[in-house]
Amino acid sequence: MRAVEFIRHIRDGEAVSADDVGAFVRGICEGTVPDYQAAAYLMAVYLKGQSDEATVATTLAMRDSGRVIDLSGLTGAKVDKHSTGGVGDKISLPLAPWVASCGVRVPMISGRGLGHTGGTLDKAESIPGFRCDVDGDQFVRMVHELGVCLAGQTADLVPADKKLYSLRDVTSTIESVPLITASILSKKLAEGINALVLDVKVGRGAFMKDLTSARELAESLVRVGTGAGLKVTALLTRMDEPLGRMVGNALEIRESIEILQGVGPQDSSELTLALGAEMIVLAGIRPDREGARELMKEKIVSGEALARFQALIEAQGGDGGVIDDPDRLPSATRRTEVITSQSGVIGGIDAFGIGTAATALGAGRAVAEDVIDPAVGIELVRTCGERVEKGDVLAIAHHNSDLGRVHENIHNCFDITDSYRDPGGLVIDRICS
Amino acid sequence: MRAVEFIRHIRDGEAVSADDVGAFVRGICEGTVPDYQAAAYLMAVYLKGQSDEATVATTLAMRDSGRVIDLSGLTGAKVDKHSTGGVGDKISLPLAPWVASCGVRVPMISGRGLGHTGGTLDKAESIPGFRCDVDGDQFVRMVHELGVCLAGQTADLVPADKKLYSLRDVTSTIESVPLITASILSKKLAEGINALVLDVKVGRGAFMKDLTSARELAESLVRVGTGAGLKVTALLTRMDEPLGRMVGNALEIRESIEILQGVGPQDSSELTLALGAEMIVLAGIRPDREGARELMKEKIVSGEALARFQALIEAQGGDGGVIDDPDRLPSATRRTEVITSQSGVIGGIDAFGIGTAATALGAGRAVAEDVIDPAVGIELVRTCGERVEKGDVLAIAHHNSDLGRVHENIHNCFDITDSYRDPGGLVIDRICS
Repeated sequence: MRAVEFIRHIRDGEAVSADDVGAFVRGICEGTVPDYQAAAYLMAVYLKGQSDEATVATTLAMRDSGRVIDLSGLTGAKVDKHSTGGVGDKISLPLAPWVASCGVRVPMISGRGLGHTGGTLDKAESIPGFRCDVDGDQFVRMVHELGVCLAGQTADLVPADKKLYSLRDVTSTIESVPLITASILSKKLAEGINALVLDVKVGRGAFMKDLTSARELAESLVRVGTGAGLKVTALLTRMDEPLGRMVGNALEIRESIEILQGVGPQDSSELTLALGAEMIVLAGIRPDREGARELMKEKIVSGEALARFQALIEAQGGDGGVIDDPDRLPSATRRTEVITSQSGVIGGIDAFGIGTAATALGAGRAVAEDVIDPAVGIELVRTCGERVEKGDVLAIAHHNSDLGRVHENIHNCFDITDSYRDPGGLVIDRICS
Repeated sequence: MRAVEFIRHIRDGEAVSADDVGAFVRGICEGTVPDYQAAAYLMAVYLKGQSDEATVATTLAMRDSGRVIDLSGLTGAKVDKHSTGGVGDKISLPLAPWVASCGVRVPMISGRGLGHTGGTLDKAESIPGFRCDVDGDQFVRMVHELGVCLAGQTADLVPADKKLYSLRDVTSTIESVPLITASILSKKLAEGINALVLDVKVGRGAFMKDLTSARELAESLVRVGTGAGLKVTALLTRMDEPLGRMVGNALEIRESIEILQGVGPQDSSELTLALGAEMIVLAGIRPDREGARELMKEKIVSGEALARFQALIEAQGGDGGVIDDPDRLPSATRRTEVITSQSGVIGGIDAFGIGTAATALGAGRAVAEDVIDPAVGIELVRTCGERVEKGDVLAIAHHNSDLGRVHENIHNCFDITDSYRDPGGLVIDRICS
């Protein structure tokens, strides 16, 4: 089918064959389909959607646009976790070694932070010496020997995604469920996994602000992932408040260590456990989530989870000494308390505001070219539902340059009110294939 | 507003300012807005539409992308006619000199044929010596002295339309009412006219196959044309059967001469009269259509209409002798009768089929690069509602190469049936501002 006819079918919401989708996506990557036809296709998908079958074909064509890691020689299930991104979302860091210590193989390829959300790579690289630019052989060897590797995207993995994302960025076609679905899943499929657990976040600190669109994305990811041959489970989780107590790269490594020591904050510890249990069940290591959670807790008590994190850090060139002495992590030269100007109950902490303030301190990137400061960030001292009196410390800003307006901005993220309504657990719903 | 934000507004069906539309369209022409953003905009307009205000701004920005002919120094109204294209639609050729002989200034810039429809330029250039590539000075002088000029599109007139049409052609965004509206009106506005009569055709031989979409286009053209400062009247006319008896370039010149002699076919003569009366009323030469029709008929009787056609031909380098001796027009070497294989009443003649057959003979272009043969075409001997007996001649093919399957194709365009239901006059409706 000619490109112009293919676009017409998508435009009119008509069925297209997997072969035609694949040829069109390959054509975009190879340059035989020009950017203007790609842009017309993207806008047509944005406005009209496309079938799951077409999105599966898009996903597979994107996956096959570059190198696909072959882990078929390794016994056992290869399972990854992907989050749609939030504030204080360090979950991948404790999760990957923890479930690896339970026997799951975790070939994890992560991204960097942009905007108000952080990125797993940036957090990991705040550990002195830690390198995410592992080559393919090292990646396979680590997944084989250690059960886990934490690598960065390389140019040869899913180049189609970079091409399409660049075009979507300049044509106002980012927020499209089928296009987001294909982007996420193609990169995960290129890791050579068999199963995937998704953390689809919803709320003011998430990409998806409302439950309807988050659920739509989660369901699309599960359907299309399943269609592409994966076992998939998605958790819909709340991202109205920051996750855990730490926001900022090295600060989040501190919290990750605490989680693996069994002394982390309740919310981030519980979410790590919930996502890990899903991975263990998908890997077939335990038949149910209850058993999986028990196994995970055993690995905390035995110290195996923490030891696996240390081994992961050292295998990737990092200073494993940070596990026992977190002060070896970079720390900011200045700490400034943010004091509440009124008494009351903390009704909410604006995750988007905290993420934006942390970015302003240098913990994140406003544009992709920005260099981040691993040491800076925001430590939340008090949390939702707690009663505070005027003069109490709400948070501590860790910073290397003047705070300026950021001080007030952090203060204003705390909603001090009369009462607090507990919204229940972080996990809103669970969707599986 | 940045291009990506502008696209987002169009994508979401939100209001955009005339300034922003103008800047975006100018950016496309000047290359500061890349083709992929233009393509995303075109698909968004295709699927979501845009406001009349935005389409007025699109139209004016397209008009101003190149030279705009200045006829403001000429007294009186400058009025043109535009047809959305049909089969056997030679109306412009008799119409322009006819209404010019009534005192209307007709600065007419026409296009070439493509696909199953013919083009006024191709028809005019079948007159030996006739040239449509007049320069701007000659155009203004002819409209001044003769009241009429029949010119071709030049590269400096509305270059934005060529750019946008090329993009629409390869992105499946041709059939968009706002984009068609802006394309038609920008080219007409560049002629320096005050008023415009539109012939929006509907039926199997037209661009718009159904009445709803044709009416939508006609109403859009009237609203947007009015918004751009023109007086506009649109006639919705039937294009199920070919118009008149002749289809093919020199053949249609023959019919044009007959119309101006008062001996043309009823349908094409009547449509010329109907469109001309609208032009005369818009020009303010007669207050009502009845008076305008009377004036036009007087110009046939006096011979002034035909004389003005001859003067127009000679002013543009053509052989004026064709008026008195149409055999000076190119003629085909072969004529083949198409005989009916059954008796009955002609219930219909498929305009699309006849147009396609004429194109196959060489009268039109399948692709823009094709060279046309001015001599060939199809002469309809019998018309709708007439009773024919097996063996009667339905049509005559004028051709220079073997007919092959075209012979049978022409035969099959005639629907020989039991009865005929007269659909009424050609004009279905009249829409004015």
